[in-house]
Amino acid sequence: MSQFENVSVATKANVYFDGKCVSHDITLPDGTRKSVGVILPSTLTFATGAPEIMELVEGECAVTLPGATEPTTYRGGESFSVPGDSSFDIEVRETLHYVCHFG
Amino acid sequence: MSQFENVSVATKANVYFDGKCVSHDITLPDGTRKSVGVILPSTLTFATGAPEIMELVEGECAVTLPGATEPTTYRGGESFSVPGDSSFDIEVRETLHYVCHFG
Repeated sequence: MSQFENVSVATKANVYFDGKCVSHDITLPDGTRKSVGVILPSTLTFATGAPEIMELVEGECAVTLPGATEPTTYRGGESFSVPGDSSFDIEVRETLHYVCHFG
Repeated sequence: MSQFENVSVATKANVYFDGKCVSHDITLPDGTRKSVGVILPSTLTFATGAPEIMELVEGECAVTLPGATEPTTYRGGESFSVPGDSSFDIEVRETLHYVCHFG
Protein backbone atom coordinates (compact mmCIF):
# COMPACT_ATOMS: atom_id res chain seq x y z
CA MET A 1 0.00 0.00 0.00
CA SER A 2 1.25 3.50 -0.77
CA GLN A 3 0.03 5.11 2.43
CA PHE A 4 -1.55 4.47 5.81
CA GLU A 5 -4.70 6.41 6.70
CA ASN A 6 -5.86 7.77 10.06
CA VAL A 7 -2.66 6.97 11.90
CA SER A 8 -0.59 8.83 14.43
CA VAL A 9 3.03 9.37 13.47
CA ALA A 10 5.93 10.20 15.78
CA THR A 11 7.75 13.41 14.85
CA LYS A 12 11.04 12.03 16.18
CA ALA A 13 12.55 9.31 14.02
CA ASN A 14 14.46 6.19 14.98
CA VAL A 15 18.02 6.44 13.66
CA TYR A 16 20.06 3.23 13.58
CA PHE A 17 23.55 2.38 12.34
CA ASP A 18 24.71 5.99 11.97
CA GLY A 19 21.69 6.79 9.83
CA LYS A 20 21.90 3.80 7.49
CA CYS A 21 18.40 3.03 8.77
CA VAL A 22 15.84 5.74 9.57
CA SER A 23 12.26 4.99 10.55
CA HIS A 24 9.19 6.68 12.00
CA ASP A 25 6.78 4.88 14.32
CA ILE A 26 3.11 4.94 13.41
CA THR A 27 0.07 3.80 15.38
CA LEU A 28 -3.07 2.57 13.64
CA PRO A 29 -6.59 3.44 14.84
CA ASP A 30 -6.84 0.02 16.55
CA GLY A 31 -3.63 0.67 18.48
CA THR A 32 -1.39 -1.52 16.30
CA ARG A 33 2.14 -0.15 16.07
CA LYS A 34 4.23 -0.30 12.90
CA SER A 35 7.14 1.62 11.49
CA VAL A 36 7.84 3.07 8.05
CA GLY A 37 11.47 3.43 7.13
CA VAL A 38 14.42 3.35 4.81
CA ILE A 39 17.64 1.35 4.79
CA LEU A 40 20.43 2.76 2.65
CA PRO A 41 22.75 0.48 0.68
CA SER A 42 24.87 -1.31 3.31
CA THR A 43 25.33 -4.68 5.00
CA LEU A 44 23.83 -4.77 8.48
CA THR A 45 22.69 -7.16 11.20
CA PHE A 46 19.37 -6.33 12.85
CA ALA A 47 18.21 -7.83 16.14
CA THR A 48 14.50 -8.40 16.75
CA GLY A 49 12.53 -8.22 19.97
CA ALA A 50 9.01 -9.02 18.81
CA PRO A 51 8.61 -11.08 15.63
CA GLU A 52 8.64 -8.85 12.56
CA ILE A 53 7.26 -8.92 9.06
CA MET A 54 9.29 -6.69 6.78
CA GLU A 55 7.11 -5.51 3.89
CA LEU A 56 9.27 -4.06 1.14
CA VAL A 57 7.77 -1.06 -0.62
CA GLU A 58 10.70 -0.48 -2.98
CA GLY A 59 14.32 -1.55 -3.37
CA GLU A 60 16.28 -4.79 -3.28
CA CYS A 61 18.10 -6.71 -0.58
CA ALA A 62 19.58 -10.11 0.22
CA VAL A 63 18.51 -11.43 3.59
CA THR A 64 19.96 -14.28 5.62
CA LEU A 65 17.36 -15.38 8.13
CA PRO A 66 18.07 -17.30 11.34
CA GLY A 67 19.03 -20.88 10.48
CA ALA A 68 19.56 -20.12 6.79
CA THR A 69 22.92 -20.79 5.20
CA GLU A 70 22.28 -18.81 2.03
CA PRO A 71 20.81 -15.33 1.54
CA THR A 72 17.49 -14.90 -0.25
CA THR A 73 16.83 -11.90 -2.49
CA TYR A 74 13.73 -9.80 -1.80
CA ARG A 75 12.44 -6.81 -3.76
CA GLY A 76 9.73 -4.18 -3.50
CA GLY A 77 6.32 -5.84 -3.32
CA GLU A 78 7.69 -8.80 -1.35
CA SER A 79 7.90 -9.49 2.39
CA PHE A 80 9.90 -11.63 4.76
CA SER A 81 9.26 -12.73 8.34
CA VAL A 82 11.75 -12.75 11.18
CA PRO A 83 11.23 -14.66 14.44
CA GLY A 84 11.26 -12.74 17.73
CA ASP A 85 14.41 -12.53 19.85
CA SER A 86 16.61 -13.32 16.90
CA SER A 87 18.59 -11.46 14.27
CA PHE A 88 19.01 -11.33 10.54
CA ASP A 89 21.70 -10.19 8.13
CA ILE A 90 20.67 -7.87 5.34
CA GLU A 91 22.63 -6.61 2.35
CA VAL A 92 20.72 -3.70 0.86
CA ARG A 93 21.56 -3.42 -2.84
CA GLU A 94 19.05 -0.70 -3.74
CA THR A 95 17.72 1.73 -1.13
CA LEU A 96 15.01 -0.12 0.73
CA HIS A 97 11.70 1.51 1.61
CA TYR A 98 9.80 -0.69 4.03
CA VAL A 99 6.95 -1.11 6.47
CA CYS A 100 7.79 -3.12 9.58
CA HIS A 101 4.87 -5.02 11.12
CA PHE A 102 5.39 -6.31 14.66
CA GLY A 103 4.05 -9.28 16.58
CA MET B 1 4.57 18.18 19.38
CA SER B 2 5.67 14.57 19.71
CA GLN B 3 3.23 13.13 17.20
CA PHE B 4 0.59 13.98 14.62
CA GLU B 5 -2.84 12.36 14.99
CA ASN B 6 -5.26 11.18 12.31
CA VAL B 7 -2.90 11.70 9.41
CA SER B 8 -2.08 9.70 6.34
CA VAL B 9 1.58 8.80 5.90
CA ALA B 10 3.32 7.75 2.71
CA THR B 11 5.06 4.38 2.97
CA LYS B 12 7.74 5.47 0.51
CA ALA B 13 10.19 8.00 1.90
CA ASN B 14 11.90 10.95 0.26
CA VAL B 15 15.65 10.32 0.19
CA TYR B 16 17.88 13.32 -0.54
CA PHE B 17 21.65 13.82 -0.67
CA ASP B 18 22.51 10.11 -0.69
CA GLY B 19 20.42 9.56 2.41
CA LYS B 20 21.76 12.48 4.47
CA CYS B 21 18.11 13.60 4.54
CA VAL B 22 15.20 11.15 4.79
CA SER B 23 11.60 12.26 5.19
CA HIS B 24 8.07 10.88 4.98
CA ASP B 25 5.15 12.94 3.67
CA ILE B 26 2.08 13.21 5.86
CA THR B 27 -1.35 14.68 5.12
CA LEU B 28 -3.51 16.15 7.87
CA PRO B 29 -7.29 15.65 8.06
CA ASP B 30 -7.83 19.11 6.48
CA GLY B 31 -5.60 18.18 3.52
CA THR B 32 -2.55 20.11 4.69
CA ARG B 33 0.68 18.42 3.65
CA LYS B 34 3.80 18.31 5.84
CA SER B 35 6.83 16.10 6.11
CA VAL B 36 8.60 14.54 9.08
CA GLY B 37 12.26 13.81 8.61
CA VAL B 38 15.85 13.57 9.69
CA ILE B 39 19.02 15.27 8.49
CA LEU B 40 22.26 13.56 9.49
CA PRO B 41 25.35 15.59 10.44
CA SER B 42 26.50 17.21 7.19
CA THR B 43 26.64 20.55 5.38
CA LEU B 44 23.98 20.83 2.68
CA THR B 45 22.15 23.37 0.53
CA PHE B 46 18.40 22.90 0.22
CA ALA B 47 16.26 24.54 -2.44
CA THR B 48 12.66 25.47 -1.65
CA GLY B 49 9.64 25.54 -3.93
CA ALA B 50 6.89 26.64 -1.57
CA PRO B 51 7.86 28.67 1.49
CA GLU B 52 8.81 26.39 4.39
CA ILE B 53 8.82 26.53 8.14
CA MET B 54 11.32 24.08 9.56
CA GLU B 55 10.24 23.07 13.07
CA LEU B 56 13.12 21.37 14.87
CA VAL B 57 12.11 18.48 17.11
CA GLU B 58 15.63 17.60 18.24
CA GLY B 59 19.22 18.30 17.26
CA GLU B 60 21.30 21.34 16.39
CA CYS B 61 22.18 23.15 13.18
CA ALA B 62 23.58 26.40 11.84
CA VAL B 63 21.48 27.88 9.07
CA THR B 64 22.34 30.63 6.60
CA LEU B 65 19.12 32.01 5.19
CA PRO B 66 18.78 33.93 1.91
CA GLY B 67 20.34 37.36 2.29
CA ALA B 68 22.09 36.49 5.54
CA THR B 69 25.84 36.81 5.80
CA GLU B 70 26.23 34.84 9.01
CA PRO B 71 24.71 31.51 10.06
CA THR B 72 22.26 31.36 12.94
CA THR B 73 22.18 28.40 15.31
CA TYR B 74 18.86 26.60 15.86
CA ARG B 75 18.10 23.73 18.20
CA GLY B 76 15.27 21.36 19.02
CA GLY B 77 12.18 23.34 20.07
CA GLU B 78 13.02 26.20 17.68
CA SER B 79 11.90 26.93 14.10
CA PHE B 80 13.09 28.92 11.13
CA SER B 81 11.29 30.13 8.01
CA VAL B 82 12.56 29.96 4.46
CA PRO B 83 11.06 31.97 1.57
CA GLY B 84 9.71 30.11 -1.46
CA ASP B 85 11.83 29.64 -4.59
CA SER B 86 15.01 30.18 -2.65
CA SER B 87 17.63 28.09 -0.90
CA PHE B 88 19.38 27.86 2.43
CA ASP B 89 22.64 26.42 3.69
CA ILE B 90 22.51 24.18 6.71
CA GLU B 91 25.28 22.67 8.79
CA VAL B 92 23.79 19.92 10.93
CA ARG B 93 25.89 19.51 14.08
CA GLU B 94 23.65 17.03 15.88
CA THR B 95 21.24 14.76 13.98
CA LEU B 96 18.22 16.91 13.22
CA HIS B 97 14.67 15.61 13.63
CA TYR B 98 12.24 18.02 12.04
CA VAL B 99 8.75 18.74 10.80
CA CYS B 100 8.59 20.72 7.56
CA HIS B 101 5.49 22.92 7.16
CA PHE B 102 4.79 24.21 3.67
CA GLY B 103 3.10 27.32 2.32
